Amino acid sequence: MKKISVTVWNEYFHEVEDAAIGKIYPDGIHGCIAGFLKEAGMDVRTATLKEPEHGLTDEVLNSTDVLIWWGHMRHGEVCDDVVEKVHKRVKQGMGLIVLHSGHASKIFGRICGTNTGELKWREDGGKEILWLVDPTHPIADGLPEKIVIEHEEMYGELFGIPEPDALVFISWFEGGEVFRSGCCFHRGMGKIFYFRPGHESFPNYFHKDVQKVIINAVKWAAPAQLPVITGGKSEPAFVK
Amino acid sequence: MKKISVTVWNEYFHEVEDAAIGKIYPDGIHGCIAGFLKEAGMDVRTATLKEPEHGLTDEVLNSTDVLIWWGHMRHGEVCDDVVEKVHKRVKQGMGLIVLHSGHASKIFGRICGTNTGELKWREDGGKEILWLVDPTHPIADGLPEKIVIEHEEMYGELFGIPEPDALVFISWFEGGEVFRSGCCFHRGMGKIFYFRPGHESFPNYFHKDVQKVIINAVKWAAPAQLPVITGGKSEPAFVK
Amino acid sequence: MKKISVTVWNEYFHEVEDAAIGKIYPDGIHGCIAGFLKEAGMDVRTATLKEPEHGLTDEVLNSTDVLIWWGHMRHGEVCDDVVEKVHKRVKQGMGLIVLHSGHASKIFGRICGTNTGELKWREDGGKEILWLVDPTHPIADGLPEKIVIEHEEMYGELFGIPEPDALVFISWFEGGEVFRSGCCFHRGMGKIFYFRPGHESFPNYFHKDVQKVIINAVKWAAPAQLPVITGGKSEPAFVK
Amino acid sequence: MKKISVTVWNEYFHEVEDAAIGKIYPDGIHGCIAGFLKEAGMDVRTATLKEPEHGLTDEVLNSTDVLIWWGHMRHGEVCDDVVEKVHKRVKQGMGLIVLHSGHASKIFGRICGTNTGELKWREDGGKEILWLVDPTHPIADGLPEKIVIEHEEMYGELFGIPEPDALVFISWFEGGEVFRSGCCFHRGMGKIFYFRPGHESFPNYFHKDVQKVIINAVKWAAPAQLPVITGGKSEPAFVK
Repeated sequence: MKKISVTVWNEYFHEVEDAAIGKIYPDGIHGCIAGFLKEAGMDVRTATLKEPEHGLTDEVLNSTDVLIWWGHMRHGEVCDDVVEKVHKRVKQGMGLIVLHSGHASKIFGRICGTNTGELKWREDGGKEILWLVDPTHPIADGLPEKIVIEHEEMYGELFGIPEPDALVFISWFEGGEVFRSGCCFHRGMGKIFYFRPGHESFPNYFHKDVQKVIINAVKWAAPAQLPVITGGKSEPAFVK
Repeated sequence: MKKISVTVWNEYFHEVEDAAIGKIYPDGIHGCIAGFLKEAGMDVRTATLKEPEHGLTDEVLNSTDVLIWWGHMRHGEVCDDVVEKVHKRVKQGMGLIVLHSGHASKIFGRICGTNTGELKWREDGGKEILWLVDPTHPIADGLPEKIVIEHEEMYGELFGIPEPDALVFISWFEGGEVFRSGCCFHRGMGKIFYFRPGHESFPNYFHKDVQKVIINAVKWAAPAQLPVITGGKSEPAFVK
Repeated sequence: MKKISVTVWNEYFHEVEDAAIGKIYPDGIHGCIAGFLKEAGMDVRTATLKEPEHGLTDEVLNSTDVLIWWGHMRHGEVCDDVVEKVHKRVKQGMGLIVLHSGHASKIFGRICGTNTGELKWREDGGKEILWLVDPTHPIADGLPEKIVIEHEEMYGELFGIPEPDALVFISWFEGGEVFRSGCCFHRGMGKIFYFRPGHESFPNYFHKDVQKVIINAVKWAAPAQLPVITGGKSEPAFVK
Repeated sequence: MKKISVTVWNEYFHEVEDAAIGKIYPDGIHGCIAGFLKEAGMDVRTATLKEPEHGLTDEVLNSTDVLIWWGHMRHGEVCDDVVEKVHKRVKQGMGLIVLHSGHASKIFGRICGTNTGELKWREDGGKEILWLVDPTHPIADGLPEKIVIEHEEMYGELFGIPEPDALVFISWFEGGEVFRSGCCFHRGMGKIFYFRPGHESFPNYFHKDVQKVIINAVKWAAPAQLPVITGGKSEPAFVK
C-alpha cells in the first residue's frame, strides 16, 4: 500500500527569533510533527515561509496527499498566489490540517468564508482538557475520553467558523472558556480538520495524544479513490 | 413591529437584451420579486448591475436586513469591492438569499469557499419537482409536500457547495437528475439560503409556491437581536 | 395571532418531599416555568406525575403546541402508554423541550434511540457558564454571548445523544468538564430542544437568561403550518 | 490485520415462498451478500428469521463487527428481545447496515426514534439513478458519480428518518420521485448506514456498484478502537 504523502508547512518564525522557543522545538514545529508522522509510516516533507514559493511549488502540492498548516505572526506574508493554489488543490482532494493559530491563516479563511481569526485568546499557560464528543469518528480511534494538556494558550468561543460537518473535540480552559477544538469540514473533494492545540511556547506537539490525533487526522483526510464528476452543459442521464 | 427591509439585486441583463424575456418579466426579475415581497408586508428596494456601485451603496447595505441575489451572465462584472462589502455585511448579520444562476456569483463562492459554479445544466424546459425533505423548517411553513414547476432549466449534482446546515428541498428533473435545491447555511451572524428555481426564460417567480418559499426564506434570514460577541485578548470569564 | 399553547410537565417530587427545595420552588418547578411563560404571552397549563394519566390526557396533548418536561427521580413511574402518546404527538408536530435531568426520561430516550441517561454528574453547586456557539439560531435571540449561573449541578460529556441538528450552547464547569447544553433535534413533524440547566436545589429557573432561552425555545418549537404528507403505495408524480 | 466479522441477517421469506424470487436469489439475499463480502476479504456469517433467536444469539452478536439487515414482510415476527439486544450492541459499537425494506424494521425504528416505515413506494420496476452527493465520504470510495439501476421498486420522500449525519446518495426515479438513499447515522459507539436498493424481485445485489457501496459501508461501520467512557457520579477532572 502506498504511503500517505504529507507536507508539513510551518511559518518557522518563533523558533528562529526566540531562543526559548527554539529550545522547545530545536527542529522547528514542522520538524517535530514530521518526526512523529514518519514514525507512523508516512512519507513526509516540510516547507516553510522563507523558502521560494514558501516551499509549496506545484510539484510539491501536486504530490501531497495531506498538507498540515501552522502559522501565527506572518499570515499576511503568505502570497495570495500560493493560497490560491493550495485552495485549488484542497478542492481537488488534498487533505488539509490546520493547527492552532493557523485558524487565522489566509487559506483557512478562504475555505471557511468567515472571519476565522475571530476568537478569544489568553497566553496564561493554564490547563486545557479536550473532551471527545464524537467517539465513533475515525479521528478518535484509540484515544482516551479526554486529553489533558498541562499548559496551553487559551482559545475561547465564539470561534468564527462555519458549522463543522463533525465536531470531535470540545476544550475546557481554567479561565472559564470552552472551544470547538476538533472540527471537520469537507469542501469539494477535500477534507479539512482544524485542531486547536499547539502554542509555540509549550512542547505540546510532543504530547502523545496530540500526536495520535494528528496521525489519525492525516489518515482520515488522505483522499480515497475519487469519482470523476462531469459538469456543465449535460445530456440527459435518462431518456425514455 | 418593524417591517423587514429587503433589497432585491438583479443583474438585469436578459430582460433588457432579449425581448422574449422582457415580455416574461416586464419589470425585470427584481421587479417581480419586489412585488410579491411588498404584498407580503415587507419594505423592499431593488438594485441592479448598471447602477453606481451596482446600487449597493453603504447606505443601502447598512439598512438592508435581507439581500436577494439574482445574476447569470455578468458575474464577472460585479466589483470585488462590492462583493467584499456584501460579504462583510452577511458576516455581521444581513441575510442573503441566492437564487438560481446566482450560484455562480462571486459572493456565493466567497461565502462557500468552494467552486459553486460547478453543477450540470440543460436548458430543456422540462419539468422540475421540488420535494420537501425538512417539513419542520421555517422555510417550509404552509407549503405542500412537493412544488411542481412545469418548465425549468435543469441543474444536476454534483453541486459545488459545502454541506448545508439544513437541506429543505431536493429537486427531480425529467432527464434523470436530482439537485439539492433549498440549502441553508449560516456564516458569522448571517443566514444564507440558496434556492434553485428561476431561469429567466420561464415565468417561475410568478409561481405561488416559489413566492411562498422566498417569502418564508426572507423571514427566516432576517436577523434577530444579535449577541454582542467579544474577542481578541480576553480576561478570564472565571476567577476562583 | 393565536397564543402558543404550552403544557409544563413536572415530576413534582422534590418540591413536596424536601422542605428546602419546596422553599426554592413553592409553586413547584412547573409553577415557576408556567409563570414566566404566561408573562411572555403564552397560554400555559401544567401537569404532574401523580395526576391521572400524569395529567397528559388525549385532550391535553392534542391541544398542546409545546410540551416542557422536567423529571428526575421517578422516570420509571411514567406509564409507557403516556410515553407512547407523547412520542406520537411529537412525531405529529408537537414541540418538546426537555430540561436538565429530563435527559434520562423515557420519552427523551425513545426519541433519541440512545442511552440518554449517560453523562457525568456531580452535585457540587459549582459555577456553570453556557457559551453561545450558534448566534444565528432563533433560540439565541436577544441573549448575551454567555450565560453565567452561580451554582449548579455539573453534567459532563460524553452525553449519550445523537448528533444534534444544531448545537446552540456549550457549558463550562469549574471541575474541568464541558457539556453540549443546548441541543436541537427534529423528528417527524416535531422539534425537540434539550436544555441543561435547572437542578432542583438551585433557583435557576428564576434566572432571567435561562427564562429567555426557554421562552425562545417554545417559540422555535411551536409547529408552523405543516404540510400534508402522503405515503404508502403511490401513483407516479410524473407521467410523460 | 484481523478480518472484519460481518453477520448478514435476512428474513428469508420471499426466496422460499416465491419461485420467481428464489430463482433470482437461489442462496437467498443473505447468501448473495455474504458471497461478495467474503470475496472482499471479510469473515461472514448469515442468520435468518426462522433460526432460534433468529440466528442472533449472544455469541453471534458479541462477535459481530457489522450486522447487515434485510427484512420486508415479517418485521412484526422479530422478537422484541432480539431487537433489544441488537440495539444494545449497536450502542456499544457494532456497525449496522439497513437495506431497502429494512427501513420499516423494528431495529431501525428503535434507533431512529421516528416512524421509519413512512415513505412512498411503487413496485413498477422503473429505473433508479443514485447520485453521489458526498464524494469525500469513505462510502464513496472508488464509485462513479452515479449508479444506474435498470429496474427497481420506487421509494419516495418524505422518508421518516432523523436528519442524517451524512447524506451520501440521493435517488432519482422515473415516476417523479427522489429519495435520500444513502444515509449515515451514529448512535452511542455505533455507526449505522441505510442504503435503499435491493427489492427482492430484481437481482440488484449482483450489481457491482451496489456491492461496492455495501463493502465500503461495512469497512466504514466496523468499530475502531473505542474509548473507555466513564459516567455517573464523577470526581472533578480539574482541581486547582
